[in-house]
Amino acid sequence: MSVIGSGSFATALTKILNGNGHALHWCVRNQHIIDHLQKYGHNPSYLRSATFNVALLQLSTNMEETIRATDFIILTVPSAYIEDILAALPKDIFKGKKIISAIKGILPKRNMLLNDYLKAEFDFDANDYYTIMGPCHAEEVASEKLSYLTFTGLNQTTTQWIADQFRNHYINTVTNDDVYGVQFAAILKNIYALGSGIAHGLEYGDNFLSVLIANAADEMAGFLRKVGIRNIEVGVHKEPIPGVQLLKTSLRKSANYAASVYMGDLLVTCYSLYSRNRTFGNMIGKGFSVKAAQLEMNMVAEGYNASKCFYQINQEVGADMPIATAIYKILWEGVQPAEAFEQLEQVLI
Amino acid sequence: MSVIGSGSFATALTKILNGNGHALHWCVRNQHIIDHLQKYGHNPSYLRSATFNVALLQLSTNMEETIRATDFIILTVPSAYIEDILAALPKDIFKGKKIISAIKGILPKRNMLLNDYLKAEFDFDANDYYTIMGPCHAEEVASEKLSYLTFTGLNQTTTQWIADQFRNHYINTVTNDDVYGVQFAAILKNIYALGSGIAHGLEYGDNFLSVLIANAADEMAGFLRKVGIRNIEVGVHKEPIPGVQLLKTSLRKSANYAASVYMGDLLVTCYSLYSRNRTFGNMIGKGFSVKAAQLEMNMVAEGYNASKCFYQINQEVGADMPIATAIYKILWEGVQPAEAFEQLEQVLI
Repeated sequence: MSVIGSGSFATALTKILNGNGHALHWCVRNQHIIDHLQKYGHNPSYLRSATFNVALLQLSTNMEETIRATDFIILTVPSAYIEDILAALPKDIFKGKKIISAIKGILPKRNMLLNDYLKAEFDFDANDYYTIMGPCHAEEVASEKLSYLTFTGLNQTTTQWIADQFRNHYINTVTNDDVYGVQFAAILKNIYALGSGIAHGLEYGDNFLSVLIANAADEMAGFLRKVGIRNIEVGVHKEPIPGVQLLKTSLRKSANYAASVYMGDLLVTCYSLYSRNRTFGNMIGKGFSVKAAQLEMNMVAEGYNASKCFYQINQEVGADMPIATAIYKILWEGVQPAEAFEQLEQVLI
Repeated sequence: MSVIGSGSFATALTKILNGNGHALHWCVRNQHIIDHLQKYGHNPSYLRSATFNVALLQLSTNMEETIRATDFIILTVPSAYIEDILAALPKDIFKGKKIISAIKGILPKRNMLLNDYLKAEFDFDANDYYTIMGPCHAEEVASEKLSYLTFTGLNQTTTQWIADQFRNHYINTVTNDDVYGVQFAAILKNIYALGSGIAHGLEYGDNFLSVLIANAADEMAGFLRKVGIRNIEVGVHKEPIPGVQLLKTSLRKSANYAASVYMGDLLVTCYSLYSRNRTFGNMIGKGFSVKAAQLEMNMVAEGYNASKCFYQINQEVGADMPIATAIYKILWEGVQPAEAFEQLEQVLI
């Protein structure tokens, strides 16, 4: 297997596979990280407590070489950068490969999920697309606290095989085939975490936060159900939804949206005090402008772009999403947070 | 209206009504609390920052007198004591009264909900039974942070009227008619909060906690759906479930179990660091015996009795409840927490 990316989650996934004894090709951006890894056995930038058996790692700064080396490519870079990274690669590089995406986001320039982008831009069979998702703070992987990862793909045997490579005494694995649903859920949870931050910034308390998150879980499930049903209808007679290209075999009417990959991930993200989305939202709630909050944090919270992408997608899907819409309007249309939340208060149950 | 009880939640509910300008009869156990309230305008034992307009309060230590004084009786005492308190009262005292219960628990001696107990033991029409539930730390009511209360009853007009007495700038109200469901949910959430505490005591991290709570939300919804469907079948041809006497008009096949009174209350209780159930569970997870934890805390966590009551009820209902069952077995059958959770790990998704 090959791993592309050396951030926090990439380091965690690599640690799991490395600890399980799998030989890996790992593309790391900077040579100095490679040197450090080889000398000290850990990534100096992320999860320093996660140690590696370096003998099993083939480290390289050359992405093309790393991809060509094996048939299973784990992509785990921030969604905001993936498009630029992939654009530099030859169009046939993913031919015959299985891609395992740990990317939790929409490609912002195109408003597309990664599987749709790969299908459109590369010589790649979308049936060979898999995802790794779930409620998983990388820090807890580093300290080997039990975490659940959900593996999703259209081929059940291969999905299970991928999951098995990760399973060990601190990683439990779940599999399903809801390729669109798990990706949309991973994006939505960042929007709601940003909203939880806004609520906190506006000085709402824990009572309200629980109401907001419970209603967000319901709103998410409603969207996913509607996308599922709509996809089925699309299969029969309608035009595809932009951003939701049709993978016929991944159509489904419902899933258990309380499972960890949906609701669990929502909970861990909304209740985490360390989430970037929540921190960013907190600043917005306290009165910072979007620009000021971005400057102050020196980074972009994923939920910011995602709120716009989702607003556009839902123009087509037409799910009832007052929470996601309020967050979009605060971030992109200059609506005052207090005003948007006062309206929101009236529709929560 | 009359209020029975002067604990934390009773004080919060009284503050809301008092602040809304309603004249109240309030039964308070100790004369010294009454003296303090009259002199300083707050309850010396709970929520000291909540101040009262004493001119609107008719304070008394005499429960019978307080109940006879009005037609709407708000009962808000711990479920463990309610049976002893009520047993001392004349059997006709609730005749023609509306009872508004804020009691979150099963009467442990009889394994019954309060409405069924009142129907069995008093001259009381179960159609006149209402509940106040929801995710509501009393401390946040004292500081007037926005909270949602759900009012439940079979008579929609009266339910709405009761809700309207509470609604103000920091209390939003929701109404429904799921008399059994909201009460079962309020009990179950204490069991799951205790389980969250056990998980924390066993040193599971936030990733696992989110998986546990998401699965608990699903387990709760599954039980409530099954009770609803079973109740409907009972209405047609089956024997009633013990602890679930039949109120024909409260039968329902489904509700939105993501609403604040179900999932919101579960979240605020499981994620609260101050919940007694969580604290108790934490000690169990760290290896204290049940007796030692009770001695150390000098109190009984509601989830402890509730886990046994629920285990018995579910013998009849037959819902799939691995989490609640594991907690019951740890607390009542001496199963080691680590062992029970290792088994549980395998069924969570």
